Amino acid sequence: MEFLSYFFMDFVSQLQSPTLAFLIGGMIIAALGSKLEIPDAIYKFIVFMLLIRVGLSGGIAVRNGNLAEMILPALFSVVMGVLIVFIGRYTLAKLPNVKTVDAIATAGLFGAVSGSTMAAALTVLETQGMDYEPWAGALYPFMDIPALVTAIVVASVYINKQSASAGEDLSKQEDFSKQEYLSKQSVAAGEYPSPQEYPTTRKEYRSQQRITASGYPSKEPESVKIWPIVKESLEGSALSALLLGLALGLVTRPESVYESFYDPLFRGLLSILMLIMGMEAWSRVGELRKVAQWYVVYAVVAPLLHGLIAFGLGMVAHYATGFSLGGVVILAVIAASSSDISGPPTLRAGIPSANPSAYIGASTAIGTPIAIGLGIPLYIAIAHALMGG
Amino acid sequence: MEFLSYFFMDFVSQLQSPTLAFLIGGMIIAALGSKLEIPDAIYKFIVFMLLIRVGLSGGIAVRNGNLAEMILPALFSVVMGVLIVFIGRYTLAKLPNVKTVDAIATAGLFGAVSGSTMAAALTVLETQGMDYEPWAGALYPFMDIPALVTAIVVASVYINKQSASAGEDLSKQEDFSKQEYLSKQSVAAGEYPSPQEYPTTRKEYRSQQRITASGYPSKEPESVKIWPIVKESLEGSALSALLLGLALGLVTRPESVYESFYDPLFRGLLSILMLIMGMEAWSRVGELRKVAQWYVVYAVVAPLLHGLIAFGLGMVAHYATGFSLGGVVILAVIAASSSDISGPPTLRAGIPSANPSAYIGASTAIGTPIAIGLGIPLYIAIAHALMGG
Amino acid sequence: MEFLSYFFMDFVSQLQSPTLAFLIGGMIIAALGSKLEIPDAIYKFIVFMLLIRVGLSGGIAVRNGNLAEMILPALFSVVMGVLIVFIGRYTLAKLPNVKTVDAIATAGLFGAVSGSTMAAALTVLETQGMDYEPWAGALYPFMDIPALVTAIVVASVYINKQSASAGEDLSKQEDFSKQEYLSKQSVAAGEYPSPQEYPTTRKEYRSQQRITASGYPSKEPESVKIWPIVKESLEGSALSALLLGLALGLVTRPESVYESFYDPLFRGLLSILMLIMGMEAWSRVGELRKVAQWYVVYAVVAPLLHGLIAFGLGMVAHYATGFSLGGVVILAVIAASSSDISGPPTLRAGIPSANPSAYIGASTAIGTPIAIGLGIPLYIAIAHALMGG
Repeated sequence: MEFLSYFFMDFVSQLQSPTLAFLIGGMIIAALGSKLEIPDAIYKFIVFMLLIRVGLSGGIAVRNGNLAEMILPALFSVVMGVLIVFIGRYTLAKLPNVKTVDAIATAGLFGAVSGSTMAAALTVLETQGMDYEPWAGALYPFMDIPALVTAIVVASVYINKQSASAGEDLSKQEDFSKQEYLSKQSVAAGEYPSPQEYPTTRKEYRSQQRITASGYPSKEPESVKIWPIVKESLEGSALSALLLGLALGLVTRPESVYESFYDPLFRGLLSILMLIMGMEAWSRVGELRKVAQWYVVYAVVAPLLHGLIAFGLGMVAHYATGFSLGGVVILAVIAASSSDISGPPTLRAGIPSANPSAYIGASTAIGTPIAIGLGIPLYIAIAHALMGG
Repeated sequence: MEFLSYFFMDFVSQLQSPTLAFLIGGMIIAALGSKLEIPDAIYKFIVFMLLIRVGLSGGIAVRNGNLAEMILPALFSVVMGVLIVFIGRYTLAKLPNVKTVDAIATAGLFGAVSGSTMAAALTVLETQGMDYEPWAGALYPFMDIPALVTAIVVASVYINKQSASAGEDLSKQEDFSKQEYLSKQSVAAGEYPSPQEYPTTRKEYRSQQRITASGYPSKEPESVKIWPIVKESLEGSALSALLLGLALGLVTRPESVYESFYDPLFRGLLSILMLIMGMEAWSRVGELRKVAQWYVVYAVVAPLLHGLIAFGLGMVAHYATGFSLGGVVILAVIAASSSDISGPPTLRAGIPSANPSAYIGASTAIGTPIAIGLGIPLYIAIAHALMGG
Repeated sequence: MEFLSYFFMDFVSQLQSPTLAFLIGGMIIAALGSKLEIPDAIYKFIVFMLLIRVGLSGGIAVRNGNLAEMILPALFSVVMGVLIVFIGRYTLAKLPNVKTVDAIATAGLFGAVSGSTMAAALTVLETQGMDYEPWAGALYPFMDIPALVTAIVVASVYINKQSASAGEDLSKQEDFSKQEYLSKQSVAAGEYPSPQEYPTTRKEYRSQQRITASGYPSKEPESVKIWPIVKESLEGSALSALLLGLALGLVTRPESVYESFYDPLFRGLLSILMLIMGMEAWSRVGELRKVAQWYVVYAVVAPLLHGLIAFGLGMVAHYATGFSLGGVVILAVIAASSSDISGPPTLRAGIPSANPSAYIGASTAIGTPIAIGLGIPLYIAIAHALMGG
């Protein structure tokens, strides 16, 4: 009862917080047909600024802190990344009118992490004065990479099995799905001149192609090479910025620019990013109409469920090694979030037969707003209830 | 006498203020042939930042304040927006070698509001310590939209009358003006790779086309639908940002990002915008050569005249409801300003037969520098004189 | 001995300073294949912000200070600009497999000045609390322009001599080199979607073409007009921003925006610029493979040598007119730096037969990292040693 009132008060106050207010504001003005446009260059720069700031603060924290206490939360992050894919594989993929590879790709995206959702959680925790380990942002890659790798491996295993039973028919089916994919590409390009074009640059695209050609099975359906997928993830712009910040925070002395530049601009830039994500979420709603309605159900339930499981694992770390409740909230939010920047291009390269409308629509239009708008207040309310209890 | 010395001192000190200094600096380096270029993405972002800041401060002010005192100034804003169009209709349009539709469109642009000119006035008032109602920035749409709507309606009425008297000839004339327009388009595109391309995006352009097709008379010249024009204005990027900021300031709690991000960056970003506008003003001077010289006279006189009329109306509100003298200055500056962002695309869609060189050249090359460089110091000097008296 | 320990300590601490750390970080992530991308618009904006800030602080300093004390350092800057070109002409150009015009263009680029390298030096001096004359940044054009002018004049004289001895053959050779140049252009464009495309805009390119056509000898090989080269330099985006800042600082009162906006953002933006330059340096390494290995030797030795000569001249000013040791360091760094923004397009227009791979590769891939990473710590260590002695 007290918990519900906590949650409700938190929720109302967070609807008014800049983070959530700008997200909802973006959705509303997009729905009203606003032509407001934040240039793509600004969007990319803001994402860079936020992730390098998260990395820098993490790196500085690890340098000054005790790395050992990070082991258990990092391990649980890996567990969550893998688990989320298997949950999707045995729930979403089993539903009627849902293609298995589409479901696996969607689960991979929901297992991967959104830097902006994480940044929103950090800001809300700071506003509410709830402590967390400064290295908590560094958990990002420990969940992001395993989720993408698992999704691509699971999809390959599935496709290979299909191929083994169907024999030669697969090649035809693949050809068809490739064509379908290409036609969808052009439709999407025409309809959504969005800030998040996947793949971002031609160069990036070519490098994905190369990896596809070398690392993924086309004629010899047995082997799935994992290193190219990991490398692809690490080289993406989001993880690059985060890891660069981590490394700089760890081995150099960036405190002066961190304190005078990256940290003070963090909240303001985040509010603009939330606005962009709100507009983007609305513009992607249309894509969901092209796929089975079960994706909507999954995109609403999955973030909350994943977050609650991660919260449970985080509480194990809380009692075992003193992981802070703020850190537990961050672990839950990372699990609840679905990737919006780095994930989609990796999945496109790794599971080319999956339909991007399914996973991008589910993630951007529903998953991210749910994770930020419901997930963050929910996990904070639970943490508050536990602190009070 | 004292007034003149006030004005002169104000004027000299404002020539040295960053706002005016960067504007003039931009004109000078453009005249000297500088290749300095502020990328278009930065320009759009700065405009967004300034307008959402003005909106946020207005929204926060209205939430904490008394909305009733806004009624009279808002009403006078509407009056000015309509009045300016009719002034242009019965002065500029009657001059030799001036096409009536071009004159109406130009008057519409001078009735519409420039967010950057308004931002410059707010900064100057703050620097001089002259108080104004924080919601004064929210007067923007109350003048902007009526001016654009009136201009388009008046132009339609005029074209319909012409059409009724000339019969079938109109269609030919329209075809010709469309061709002329297109050829001007391509010339302009070749000559001015400017930060203000109208219409901004292809999407925007298409939506305007759609509105034109549905809302404006082509075969049935009787009806002019007003709602599409209002909607077009509200959806434009400038008004969207301002209204979003207003709404967020009104119903959420954006104080933390406002105070840590939007407000501190306001003056610096404004200085860059002034630089861009100065360069832009110089690059548009050439367009004026293509139209009758009366546009130059109008563009010099109109901002000062409009501002003085609005100042008079503002003084009525000052004595009637205690509207501050700073607020009166803002009302005058809004009336003196001419739209540089949101106005031109709306006018292109609404009065397609008007020549963009006429209204954009007059507004950007002369109207805006006059409003900022002469108008703002003039109205402040008058306010000072009235405060002293 | 003490000097070496000073230098070593300085060097290690500077490797950890944000300036150098972001530069090296950029090189490392580019080497690891990161797809991190800072949009070109952001790059151009940062360069503008840094140079106008340097100009503003210089202008404010000159307004409040004593211009006379600037004369000797400015004179030495001119001397260095000219001298560096002649050093290159009689060392690099004499080496085997080095084409003379390529060597002269490379020397011109190493004589020209890098705004970002200078900004890095200013930041390091401020961090270390070493005083310098605030107008020191204004020395930039006094070295930059003479170096570019000298290089273009020396190259023209050389080409004319060749042409006089070879007669008609020159035209064929020129045609060939132009073709070679064009083919290199397209290869470069395909391989390096870099933030520094030369020439930056089509407009700029056309204006260069025009200058080439009018100012440089093609059929009448006698006359080299100097004014078009100077004008070209002054109009470039880098010098424009610097000189605009200088002028605004000198004749207006920009202190409010300088202190609230341009100065506080300086260090943070510089760290991002260093990151971009690091990535850029790595991506340009490949270009060096296309030219003689002597360019690598030159690019390593020249910055340090030029800096030491300038340091010596600066010490003359130190003893003669009290030029500060911090100012001496800046003079040395300006001499050590090689132009990355304004120089290349001017050289392309002025010495069209020179191979851009030679001078851009040598400067961006090696010269700049050496000047920042070794030059700055070296000159500061020498200054420390002299202060201690």
